[in-house]
Amino acid sequence: MTTVYYNPWLKQHKDPFGAVQKETQVNFSIVAKGEAIEEVYFVIRKENSKYKNEYYKMTRDINDSYNCSYLFNQGKGLYFYYFMIRQGNQPFFYGTTKACSGEGQIYEEEHSVVPYQATCFSKPDKAPAWYREAVVYQIFPDRFHNGNAHNQINHPKRNSFIYGNHSDEPMYIKNEVGEIIRWDFQGGNFLGIIEKIPYLKKLGVTAIYLNPIFESISNHRYDTANYLKIDSILGDEADFRTLVDLLHENEMHIILDGVFNHVGKNSIYFNYDGSYGEKQGAYRDSDSPYYPWFTFTDYPSIYKSWWGFGDLPEVNKENLVYQEFIYGETDSVLSKWNSFGIDGWRLDVADELPDFFIQGIRQNLNQYPEKILLGEVWEDASNKIAYDKRRQYILGDSLYGVMNYPFRSIILALLKEEMTPKQAAESLTTLEENYPTDIFYNNLNNLGTHDTERLLTMMAGNKTKTLSAFSLMTVLPGIPCVYYGDEVGITGGKDPENRKYFPWNNMDSTILKGFKYWINVRKKTNVLKSGDFIPFYTKELFGVLRYDPSNYSLYVLNSTNIVKKINVAEFNFTKNCPMTDEKIATILDELEIAPYDCCFISGKL
Amino acid sequence: MTTVYYNPWLKQHKDPFGAVQKETQVNFSIVAKGEAIEEVYFVIRKENSKYKNEYYKMTRDINDSYNCSYLFNQGKGLYFYYFMIRQGNQPFFYGTTKACSGEGQIYEEEHSVVPYQATCFSKPDKAPAWYREAVVYQIFPDRFHNGNAHNQINHPKRNSFIYGNHSDEPMYIKNEVGEIIRWDFQGGNFLGIIEKIPYLKKLGVTAIYLNPIFESISNHRYDTANYLKIDSILGDEADFRTLVDLLHENEMHIILDGVFNHVGKNSIYFNYDGSYGEKQGAYRDSDSPYYPWFTFTDYPSIYKSWWGFGDLPEVNKENLVYQEFIYGETDSVLSKWNSFGIDGWRLDVADELPDFFIQGIRQNLNQYPEKILLGEVWEDASNKIAYDKRRQYILGDSLYGVMNYPFRSIILALLKEEMTPKQAAESLTTLEENYPTDIFYNNLNNLGTHDTERLLTMMAGNKTKTLSAFSLMTVLPGIPCVYYGDEVGITGGKDPENRKYFPWNNMDSTILKGFKYWINVRKKTNVLKSGDFIPFYTKELFGVLRYDPSNYSLYVLNSTNIVKKINVAEFNFTKNCPMTDEKIATILDELEIAPYDCCFISGKL
Repeated sequence: MTTVYYNPWLKQHKDPFGAVQKETQVNFSIVAKGEAIEEVYFVIRKENSKYKNEYYKMTRDINDSYNCSYLFNQGKGLYFYYFMIRQGNQPFFYGTTKACSGEGQIYEEEHSVVPYQATCFSKPDKAPAWYREAVVYQIFPDRFHNGNAHNQINHPKRNSFIYGNHSDEPMYIKNEVGEIIRWDFQGGNFLGIIEKIPYLKKLGVTAIYLNPIFESISNHRYDTANYLKIDSILGDEADFRTLVDLLHENEMHIILDGVFNHVGKNSIYFNYDGSYGEKQGAYRDSDSPYYPWFTFTDYPSIYKSWWGFGDLPEVNKENLVYQEFIYGETDSVLSKWNSFGIDGWRLDVADELPDFFIQGIRQNLNQYPEKILLGEVWEDASNKIAYDKRRQYILGDSLYGVMNYPFRSIILALLKEEMTPKQAAESLTTLEENYPTDIFYNNLNNLGTHDTERLLTMMAGNKTKTLSAFSLMTVLPGIPCVYYGDEVGITGGKDPENRKYFPWNNMDSTILKGFKYWINVRKKTNVLKSGDFIPFYTKELFGVLRYDPSNYSLYVLNSTNIVKKINVAEFNFTKNCPMTDEKIATILDELEIAPYDCCFISGKL
Repeated sequence: MTTVYYNPWLKQHKDPFGAVQKETQVNFSIVAKGEAIEEVYFVIRKENSKYKNEYYKMTRDINDSYNCSYLFNQGKGLYFYYFMIRQGNQPFFYGTTKACSGEGQIYEEEHSVVPYQATCFSKPDKAPAWYREAVVYQIFPDRFHNGNAHNQINHPKRNSFIYGNHSDEPMYIKNEVGEIIRWDFQGGNFLGIIEKIPYLKKLGVTAIYLNPIFESISNHRYDTANYLKIDSILGDEADFRTLVDLLHENEMHIILDGVFNHVGKNSIYFNYDGSYGEKQGAYRDSDSPYYPWFTFTDYPSIYKSWWGFGDLPEVNKENLVYQEFIYGETDSVLSKWNSFGIDGWRLDVADELPDFFIQGIRQNLNQYPEKILLGEVWEDASNKIAYDKRRQYILGDSLYGVMNYPFRSIILALLKEEMTPKQAAESLTTLEENYPTDIFYNNLNNLGTHDTERLLTMMAGNKTKTLSAFSLMTVLPGIPCVYYGDEVGITGGKDPENRKYFPWNNMDSTILKGFKYWINVRKKTNVLKSGDFIPFYTKELFGVLRYDPSNYSLYVLNSTNIVKKINVAEFNFTKNCPMTDEKIATILDELEIAPYDCCFISGKL
């Protein structure tokens, strides 16, 4: 009988774990027992390198293990590897499964092998300290709070509608062919956020991430009309400065949304409707300084736009003037708003921004080591391919981290029992393995954003599940980000339902109490912010161990609808566990966990 | 050669002119010259009488005229008559043309004859004095003025939208199948009207007609939710009382809109959506006291509604409880609002209200001789057939008058050169002939309402035409009614464009000045309110003579696009003119009138 086993999550097979900096030496070891096994080869290929597969014969040791060490010396990027085992005349192969990394499988044919991914980055990317400690709160500004007396709206836009009540259901106002013909506003503004700083502080959040705030036509402002102006419905520059300053006085930080792939059709740059002058803008004047920013295939009516939405003409990021305009050292969009003291940027649709463009933005921000740079990427950003190109988001000198939608999917699937605890543990470990450690810890985790269904709705109204989902986010690596109002039980499906006005007079106190509790747990438990991470599982329990040289936190979730008693003997850890079963048993054994509930214990190692 | 001539507009042919009270004796005289004319018969039939045609042999006098007199003794209603002339063996006939009354035509076949209409009413219907003197102003309350501080909206409705700006274009918010899914408001209210009383007074209006004001879901409030409540977005009962009292203090009157054919689906009576209680209302409870008001063919989902619009369930007017509820002497809708001192009602969709129902309302109002009762009828109300039934609107003890849409059509067609001056003069004389005199003078004339295009838009933006149209309304019999904002040049097509917010900061001063001028002319010239009326015409000029025993007013409109000089010798009057040509010539001859302009002269006879 032939036995082959390799699992990169265990130190005895791969050391060090996970992504490595370039020029790092990594040890690989595979067990291959069986008759007539003659040789084992480590097969590796650097993506986009001039070399094809390299085959390294591994050294057999006395335990039927075959070892080799490999120096990641072809620079940053993705390396893919597997093993070739020669048994008799016929070689066979060992690679990973499609679903996850970890324990792999045997392949008969070399061309069928799914190789393991080894991520190699150029340099570590530790985020600024404030960010590593942060609990972030995402605000969709129109829907948070109107701080004006008498609920007055600042400068309503021409032909726009204001919701009759803050409790009204959001909706799009469309014509018969489904185009949005009027924009709908609640009138949330900077004064409103300022007024709610005490609320946010009490909630425990330490930073806010604002959806776009620059002049535009819509309520979401992803259709920028002028990057250099605050949208007047939100307030003015003085209000914005006050907001930034007051946040800082309250030891809170602020991250802005940078939407640099496209502009609004009715912007000062494109000026489709002539709002910015009869003969101004690229659409109306081919001599406009903005004309070269856009790609017209039939001037002026046919032009490149985001996903074909004519409302959002795409800017050519190769254009040097545009690059200078966005991230030049002076007189640029970044320089203007950085000068207000903001603490970082989240880049919208990072997939649409070329790597050099993101790197240009990062270079600008490198002047300010306290400013963070995040990107909107919906998948595992370590191996994302966009427009046929493997992206460089997390290999150094680009993003500090991404919005971690895969985490959201795993947490929600686990609580909806669409994923087993084992699958969840393995998916999380795969992500950890693929990301450079700093990135993995910098990612902005969420359980919902302006682009997804609301948490409570995803949990079908179950408050225990809702709070367990949030607790999970606070015990996992990465920065928790609360989408405004999730903490008071706002419900809703996808856009526009997920953009209700904050129910200041109708908050769910159970959920709010729970959020406060877990935010406090996160903040006072350092090991949750920076400790190592090992997920574990039984058939029905999902667990997280966080630890550092002297502390641990143990978290166990019952993802079923019946009470479960913990039996530590059943625990499976995806990685080598630094605590003994006995030690864990003394802490957790016999504890009962209510359906969908969780338990959390921290202590000294 | 045979000559036959009859024209009921001339005293020598029919005396008295026009509609008559029952039991009146009327003389008819027809000229019939020609060989072998043996006998002439006056043929008359009372509609819906048990008798068929009656044939009266007419008496020949020396001038080839044949005379008879007829006593209208079969009660109120329409009588139809024509003439039969026996010439040799073959009779032929003389009736009116299809287009108009006045000069008729010969018919070969009796079954083809279009008979003349003679209207016979039960009693005169003089309106209250204030109304006969009135210049009315129609206000669509949501769009006139918001009198709150900071433009606050009183109690916006659940899931409604407020226009971002008063200058925004009105629109319906519909779903993909064209149903209205949110109502749109500007927030006009009673305090706003109160604030503008000085404006209205300065304009010269002496009464306002308000579109509906009772609780409902929509901005137009034709979908009543509760007849006994003021819509809270307009204010409360105290505000309404203040409005009525202040209007009266300012010698102005107020007419309300009564919408009694149907109610709103989401009303206290029907309660489709449960807004008025889980188990209340006809739709949700077949034991509801309101259940018998409605006609369900398949309870609860299929029910009778206005023109099949499920949003507007129709009430069965035969229901005695409903009759009592609307116009009972006490505790009724009418008694409640009459007690606030309002000065009358305009009945919405009078065609849908049975005659007995309108008469019931009139009976209630007969307690208050100062209150007016008008009806919405779009055609000549003297001979309107609705649902296969000839209607009794204007035959006495019913309406005082109707909204005079035919006048609007004539005036606009004349100024758009779609009708000749002759056609206009004849159409007006036909209407005068068909209506009892009091009704003709009580009709509420308009050049636009919430249901039509705006005047200035109909006049293609031409201000001269616009003012001439208005001048015509002030010199014609009937009460002029200005649709709010027409006097400052609001434009717009049909609903919703005709419901823009009043442009308080952007009024057209030329048009406003013109409206004030003509309102003043109307008010100071009594002969325009109560004098006799004769239209006249040339090929290109249209004129109106108003006169009483001692005064006259002469008005001439040039409906062409070139300057015209008046030549009185060309004038044709539709009726016997009491002034000599020489007298008129001394007043008007040689006057030049600019394109689409008019002249007006009053004096002593």
